[in-house]
Amino acid sequence: MPNASKVTFSDLRSFNARCLMSCGMPQSDAEKAAQLIAQADVMGQDGHGVFRLPMYIKRIRSGGMNMTPNFKVLSDRPATALIDGDNGLGHLVMQHATELAMEKARTTGVAWVGARHSNHAGPASLYAMMPARENMIGLYLAVGSANHMPPWGGTDMLLSTNPISVALPSQDFPHIVLDMATTVAAYGKVKTAAQRGEQMPEGWMIDRNGNPLTDPARSSEGFLLPIGGAKGYGLSLIFGILAGVLNGAAFGKDVVDFNADAASVTNTGHVIMALDIAAFADPAEFRRNIDDVWRQMKSSGHLPGVDEIRLPGERLDRTTRERSEYGIPIPAQLREKLSNLAEELGVEPLT
Amino acid sequence: MPNASKVTFSDLRSFNARCLMSCGMPQSDAEKAAQLIAQADVMGQDGHGVFRLPMYIKRIRSGGMNMTPNFKVLSDRPATALIDGDNGLGHLVMQHATELAMEKARTTGVAWVGARHSNHAGPASLYAMMPARENMIGLYLAVGSANHMPPWGGTDMLLSTNPISVALPSQDFPHIVLDMATTVAAYGKVKTAAQRGEQMPEGWMIDRNGNPLTDPARSSEGFLLPIGGAKGYGLSLIFGILAGVLNGAAFGKDVVDFNADAASVTNTGHVIMALDIAAFADPAEFRRNIDDVWRQMKSSGHLPGVDEIRLPGERLDRTTRERSEYGIPIPAQLREKLSNLAEELGVEPLT
Repeated sequence: MPNASKVTFSDLRSFNARCLMSCGMPQSDAEKAAQLIAQADVMGQDGHGVFRLPMYIKRIRSGGMNMTPNFKVLSDRPATALIDGDNGLGHLVMQHATELAMEKARTTGVAWVGARHSNHAGPASLYAMMPARENMIGLYLAVGSANHMPPWGGTDMLLSTNPISVALPSQDFPHIVLDMATTVAAYGKVKTAAQRGEQMPEGWMIDRNGNPLTDPARSSEGFLLPIGGAKGYGLSLIFGILAGVLNGAAFGKDVVDFNADAASVTNTGHVIMALDIAAFADPAEFRRNIDDVWRQMKSSGHLPGVDEIRLPGERLDRTTRERSEYGIPIPAQLREKLSNLAEELGVEPLT
Repeated sequence: MPNASKVTFSDLRSFNARCLMSCGMPQSDAEKAAQLIAQADVMGQDGHGVFRLPMYIKRIRSGGMNMTPNFKVLSDRPATALIDGDNGLGHLVMQHATELAMEKARTTGVAWVGARHSNHAGPASLYAMMPARENMIGLYLAVGSANHMPPWGGTDMLLSTNPISVALPSQDFPHIVLDMATTVAAYGKVKTAAQRGEQMPEGWMIDRNGNPLTDPARSSEGFLLPIGGAKGYGLSLIFGILAGVLNGAAFGKDVVDFNADAASVTNTGHVIMALDIAAFADPAEFRRNIDDVWRQMKSSGHLPGVDEIRLPGERLDRTTRERSEYGIPIPAQLREKLSNLAEELGVEPLT
């Protein structure tokens, strides 16, 4: 990556923590959140790591987020819980929810924990991967933090890119980790194309007349397209209901555009499910079977021009290993933003 | 539908039961299966109802299915179970699994029941809708009964159309019911196009060189495409692992093509999840909130040329009401097949 100097995970984590503590987040919470935000960068989820920190800080300083949330369990069953995040940072709410789901699933076999009154929590795979480290399967759903898509055939933006992530542990190969928006392109890709002055391929967006929209500078005149047409619309709708409506969190017209409005409570909803592999199979044997899935897929013949079959989670794993060893690239533009942020907050800059 | 005479639900159910009983299925099982097969037709899932009966009968008569299965619970936790279907008809295995999941979820809040050694079970929505009738949310996944898709970029058909269905209860509007293959087109649509001598649109299939394949008569030379490219491949892979690998059921190269081979044990895998709404919200309020989702989506502006915004489950509901009142259309070609089947089995034909 040109113009991108590198930082270590540990330096990035410390910087995140300094910034959050300077805004009044208690040290233990700031360290937890800082770890998860830096983890997103190590994983290669560049649009969901420290890139978002200035936005989180802006929201905190606008009074749009609670620095000392008191998580409440609103409803509790042996295998389910509904958590009120008390408008805390999503990372803290969802780490808590995921730990609870894993604890329950160890006994019951599966657990489903929903959250309301949360906020943006970074990449979906961050939470789906937590159970996968302990011989469980993780599944995470969320209502996206801004609506970018109408129902199929419509023009009112009532839906978000509502993502799904599922993580499955393997033995010798990387974990299989699916982490995808239900739209063809995530909105971050549109923003990146705009920054770079590049055109978008047809199929990412259409305008209000249904024509392809390929100029990212005109993105406000159109909307994202779902994968598979009506099917992706259906997935976005269902995931949004499970993560939003069921939890009493925002959905549809109630979703606050967190880019445009840093002060209103977002009432973001998420769900984590943990499924204990031991309730179905010997975990070691299951992990070996996932290795066999890798081998089967990898050994498929290739279409002309394709040099390798990839599995979901493969790039994430490679990036994680590379960045853990050689550091995390921070593009010049982002570094400047983070320097300004440090100055604004009066904390030591990222070195 | 031209050349399609109609039958009542009750006549169709009786016919299904007669055929199954004539092959040695005990009466109570035959009646359950007959009901579910006819239900698929009432719902408008024409490719998954009585259309499949000749194939089931062929498998039964080839010794490829067990008429007196003894379902075993291989593993049991408060919120999970793994069932061995003993090579019984999938409808019976999955009705049993769904009832067990609902019973568990009433206490634990959520339950996840997997099955191995099952067979084709008809449409996914049949099972997802069972919890929805009792203030629960249903989610069903399955490994499809033949591989039609390679991993993304590949040429070896290692994956199926692995479907997902999710059903959410509403109050005054129809239940929201998503029921979709992870491929752009289900394989049944290719067969239908071939029967009608029609071309397929680009995007359904490609050939082994990666070029669009639009002639359904050449379908054996290519494969189905996943929705959203690599994303749909990821969904098919994940759903297949959850329904297949985790349950010790067939996946990848072990999947038996049930169209081509009527004698080998398929070891089909499925999963049903039941989520008790009362563990998260007042069910009546949740159902009213789903009504509000309907109203929001329906009131969106339309793209030019679109006359109405639809929600998943809308056509299913309308078809169910129409066919319950006016009967189920049976195309002439299918009626002839069913007449031949009746004669072969020595049972009274469908009237």
